This record gives sequence, C-alpha cells and structure tokens, in this order.
Amino acid sequence: MTASELISFARGAPSLDIVDVSGLKAAADAALTNDPGGALGYGTAIGYPPLRKYLAERHGVAEEQVLVTNGSMQADAFLFDELVKPGQPVIVERPTYDRTLLGLRQRDADVRPVSLAVDGIDVEELAGLLEGGLRPTFAHVIPNFQNPAGYTLSLAKRTRLLELAEQYDFVIFEDDPYVQIRFAGEPLPTMLELDEGRGRVVYASSFSKTVAPGVRVGYIVGPAELVAKVRVRATNTYISPNMFAQAVVHRFCVDGGLERSIATVNAALAERVQTLCDALSKHLPDAKFTAPEGGYFMWVELPEGVDVAKLLPAAEERGVTFVKGTDFLLDGGERTMRLAYSGVRADQIEEGVSRLADALASLA
Amino acid sequence: MTASELISFARGAPSLDIVDVSGLKAAADAALTNDPGGALGYGTAIGYPPLRKYLAERHGVAEEQVLVTNGSMQADAFLFDELVKPGQPVIVERPTYDRTLLGLRQRDADVRPVSLAVDGIDVEELAGLLEGGLRPTFAHVIPNFQNPAGYTLSLAKRTRLLELAEQYDFVIFEDDPYVQIRFAGEPLPTMLELDEGRGRVVYASSFSKTVAPGVRVGYIVGPAELVAKVRVRATNTYISPNMFAQAVVHRFCVDGGLERSIATVNAALAERVQTLCDALSKHLPDAKFTAPEGGYFMWVELPEGVDVAKLLPAAEERGVTFVKGTDFLLDGGERTMRLAYSGVRADQIEEGVSRLADALASLA
Repeated sequence: MTASELISFARGAPSLDIVDVSGLKAAADAALTNDPGGALGYGTAIGYPPLRKYLAERHGVAEEQVLVTNGSMQADAFLFDELVKPGQPVIVERPTYDRTLLGLRQRDADVRPVSLAVDGIDVEELAGLLEGGLRPTFAHVIPNFQNPAGYTLSLAKRTRLLELAEQYDFVIFEDDPYVQIRFAGEPLPTMLELDEGRGRVVYASSFSKTVAPGVRVGYIVGPAELVAKVRVRATNTYISPNMFAQAVVHRFCVDGGLERSIATVNAALAERVQTLCDALSKHLPDAKFTAPEGGYFMWVELPEGVDVAKLLPAAEERGVTFVKGTDFLLDGGERTMRLAYSGVRADQIEEGVSRLADALASLA
Repeated sequence: MTASELISFARGAPSLDIVDVSGLKAAADAALTNDPGGALGYGTAIGYPPLRKYLAERHGVAEEQVLVTNGSMQADAFLFDELVKPGQPVIVERPTYDRTLLGLRQRDADVRPVSLAVDGIDVEELAGLLEGGLRPTFAHVIPNFQNPAGYTLSLAKRTRLLELAEQYDFVIFEDDPYVQIRFAGEPLPTMLELDEGRGRVVYASSFSKTVAPGVRVGYIVGPAELVAKVRVRATNTYISPNMFAQAVVHRFCVDGGLERSIATVNAALAERVQTLCDALSKHLPDAKFTAPEGGYFMWVELPEGVDVAKLLPAAEERGVTFVKGTDFLLDGGERTMRLAYSGVRADQIEEGVSRLADALASLA
C-alpha cells in the first residue's frame, strides 16, 4: 500500500472481493435461458413476477403487498411522494441517512428528529412528543445496523413503536436494507412481522448489500392498497423496472447464490469490524464507539473540542476519508464521524485509522 | 393457430423472435468478465460511463451532454419535471403517445395539440399559434415513425421547426426511440444534428426497440446545463440507474450486436408491414392508412360512422385487439385505431385483420 492510495471509510458500498461475480454470470445465463421473454420484455411496474412471489413468500405476505423497484432509493422516493404531505410532521432518527433527510425536505415535510440510542430510536422521547400533540404522518426508522450509526432497534422498542403507531395513528416506515448483514448477535423480528398484518408498517429493503449495488433491485412490502397506489406512480414513471436485472437476481437467489453471498459478506465484515475496533483502541484511544453487530457503518464520537469540518480536510491530505457526522443531522454532531468498513479491505484498516489519528493530532 | 389465441395489435413491444437472446447472454458474460466493478458497483446518475461515451460519440456531442436512464420513459419524466411549468403551454402532436399526454397533464401543463400530417407536425399551424402570441415552453415531437401514427417528419419541416424554436425561444423535445427501426426510405438528420449545438433541442432515445425493452436503457442528449440539472434529479431519485444492464448493453453494442439486432428487427418488421397492408386491402378495403417506413405502428382510419369504442369489445370477443385512436387524443379520433405490428408474427397478421373485419361487420 502506498501513501498515495486513498483509504475510504466514506462510501456505503461493498468492496468487489465480496461480490459473487461468477455466481451472477451463471445467474444471467440461466435467467436468459429459462425465461428470455420475462427477462427481456417490458413487464409491468410490480417488477419481475417470480421475484415478487419469492419476496412475498420470504416475508409471509400476499403478492399484492410487494412491489419490486430499481433499488430501494427509488422505493423510498415513491413512498415519500405518496405519503409526505407538505408541512405535515414526519419522525426521523437523529442522526439518520442523509438522503432520507434530503428526500423529506425536498417534499417540504416538517422533519422532526428523535434521539437515537445504541438500542435504537428513543421511543419515550417520541411518546412525549405524541402526548404533546404531535401527529406525524409516519416515522422513518432504520431498525438494523442503522445508517449512519450502526445501532439496532431492540425488540422492546420495536413493540413499543408499534403500540404508539396504533395509538396515535401513524405509519412506521421500516427502512431495512441491512437486515441480512448480521455477523454477531441474534436476529430480531421485523416490525412488519410484529404488526401481524394490521397495516401499520410499510417495509423497504434491497439486494444492494446482499447481491450487488449495480443490479439496483429494491422492494417494498406494505398494505395492498398503498402498494397499488405506488404501482400507478411506478407505471407512470418508467412503465416497468429492470426486468433483466430482476430476473438475474431471482435466479441468483433461487439457485442458492443469495445465502452463499450473505455468508461471504458477513464473514468479511465481521473481520473488518474487529480490525477497525482494534485499530481505533490503539490509535484513537479517546474515541467512543459501539461495535456493530452487522451492517456497513460505525459511528465514532471524538473528544470534546474536535471539529470534523476541520478534521476531514486534514484526513484527506493524509490519504484517508470518511463522512462527517454533521451530514446526518439537521444540527449538531460536530465531533462525530461515520466510518464505513464495507468498502475497505481488512489490510487497509489499520493504516487508515493511523492516518486519521495523524490528522487529529495535526489539529491540536 | 387456434381461434382462442388472442392476436394483439395493441402492445408496442417486440415479439421475442426478434430479440437476440444469445447475443445478450454473451454480452452479460463479457461485461461481468471485463468490468465487474463497473457493472456491479453503485456508479453515478450519469449512467455507465463507457455507454455514455459511446452515445456521445454516436451523436457527436460532449459526454457532459449525455445522461443514461432506466428506459426513456424515465428520461421523459425527469425532463418533464425539469421543463414543465404548471399552466404554461407545451406543444404536442395530435395524435401523440398516450403516456406523453398523461405525463404532461399530471404536471399541469397547458397541453396544446397541433395537427399531425403524413409528413409530420403541421409547422404552419404551429407558426400561426406562435404569431397569435402562444409562447410554449417546449414542443414535444416524435419525428420518426411516430407513435401512434407511424408518420415521419420531413426534412423541410425539421428545419422550419428549428427556425420557429429559435424565433420564439422554445425548446424542441425530440423524442426519438424508433429512429433506427427504418426498413424503407432514406434516413433523415435528427433535429439535434440540424441544430448544430445551438442548444435548442433536447433529444431522448432508447435501446428498447433495438436491443430489448426489459433492459430498460434509455438516454437523453441535450445542453450540458440541462443535463446537469437532470443529473441532480436522478441522483436524488435513485443514486444511479442500472449499471449491470447498461454494462451489458454497452458490451452488446461494441461487440456488433446492435447492428445485427437492428438488421434482424428491420427485416422482420418490413415483412409484417407488407403483410398488414395486404391484409387490410383485402379484408378492410375502405380503411385508410399510410404504410410506415419504419417503427412499430400504423394508424388506420375507418369509414365514417364507425365508433372504435364499440369496435374494440367486438374485436376482443373475436380474439383480436388494438388501441383506440381516441387514447392518443384529447378529443376526436372516434374512427381511428393504432395497429402495432411489432409484437405479432407475420403468420398471425392476416387472421388478425380478418377478425377485425368480422368485428366491424358485426356493428353494421
């Protein structure tokens, strides 16, 4: 590794070594052999029907409750278009995914951030707001290995959130792209499952983290009536999403590629998290963090007085980059940063953290 | 062929026999071998860079003037979002593509249809409107083998339209998915070319008709400033379009698949048009039509007194379907229909037209 090679803790994307390129080649060949008409025809806005069926079975819902999109960002965009009413409040986690904040603000939502703890959104802070009269349209929650924090919503809080949704009549937008990237601890039920068909939850996920981002396959699961409305929007926007990519992803899944790929990704990310924690303890002993049990991201709090707006250029001068915590907040977060370990090789991590430590020292 | 087999002149989609499935298999394998990182990573909203470069070269423009999308409907949606101002007039052809009408009306454009002749939009009718004070934001024109009419804009009218755009300061939205599906006559220059970089034209096209619809690859070419604005919209909507499908289409093109595919499609469609014209002359001698020189569609005018709203159910009872001309117009067109010959095999055509004739006779 040369000093000139940039080590990026910035991008929430997998390194190519954990993508199953040969498995996807085989899946492409098989999809075009088995169902050329389905893979290459227009199709409809619900997505590739066998993939929709596969997802409905996986989530234990009716097919009418599933719609497959061009990545889950597109799913979010359709849902925001459908659900956001200008000036009406929506709940988000503080911090949350920067593109979620942008999407909500562009649609003139009244964005109300609620504190995020290591075990997820502060449901009692939310309960206080609701008791005080706040009536949100929906609460956007990333329950597993949250972006940017890496934290996971506890079972008790999932249940409480559903109770609040029922009591105060709002929708839970369960944004769950990382659910299968768990490499420690025990899986928790989704709020979609816990809701048991009451229709309080709209769920979005993706194959970007389990198969590859470039296939751009995401999906929503929700009440059939809401999904039907999104279908109309999708039809009017693009007639149909990418049938070819969805047919390949379907074939990859049913041929066992998905499970193999998840095992590969999780083994690699577990190693990277361990290496990252060790390197932080060694080079930045004053930094505070919680080792994630899955996902792509770790949230790091630096000592009092650090300003990440100054740290970032100093870091980039030294060949390492990250995303400032302030990007994920409407205000505050000046001494926080998001470190993505999904796109770095394990052998780059210690060097990257050492460069970060150098950058921090240069500011003193 | 059994009587129960529906013969569809409705859908503007290719039959599977004219899609190069094995060429696409080879392209998928090659794309994943040669550029797995590019095909499977997130990429950016401009699309797969080598495909963008290929398109820029083909159209003789700078790369910054090109953006590749998830099909050209998505390109249209971004452009409408960017260009349409609620209440402001836009020009369309009468008749025009039903989804264009829908997209413009959903954005509250003041839609002003201008008559379409066999040689394209009536530029003198448009000139009259402009002289009368109409100031459209843009004119949407499908210059080659128009949907639904199958007509092509003459060179003289292309030049005149550009003059009017310059004189009255409006944009020409040149919507050109069928340009390469020419099986008779001589190709004409695009208005994008004739504009010679003055920035009066934004051009949209697609690989749906030359490669396959299911790959959902479309694109725009326009002034760099407009393309940059669309890029921001695209980033906020889906981060990036389908890199995998675009990498496969790029490989298919550079390996010669595109030219082979165009030759196959055009040979097949030339035969179908001939068969369709012969069948219409035989079974529906009073129908009026102009044999298209390319594309997917033929516009047919039935005798005075026919109502396609009654003809369509009678036709469907007899195992044949089409799209009513009224779907492509804000008003009028009661005795017109669009026959798509792209999705029917040549051996189905005479039987389909014979069923149409039966249906028509049943209404008398």
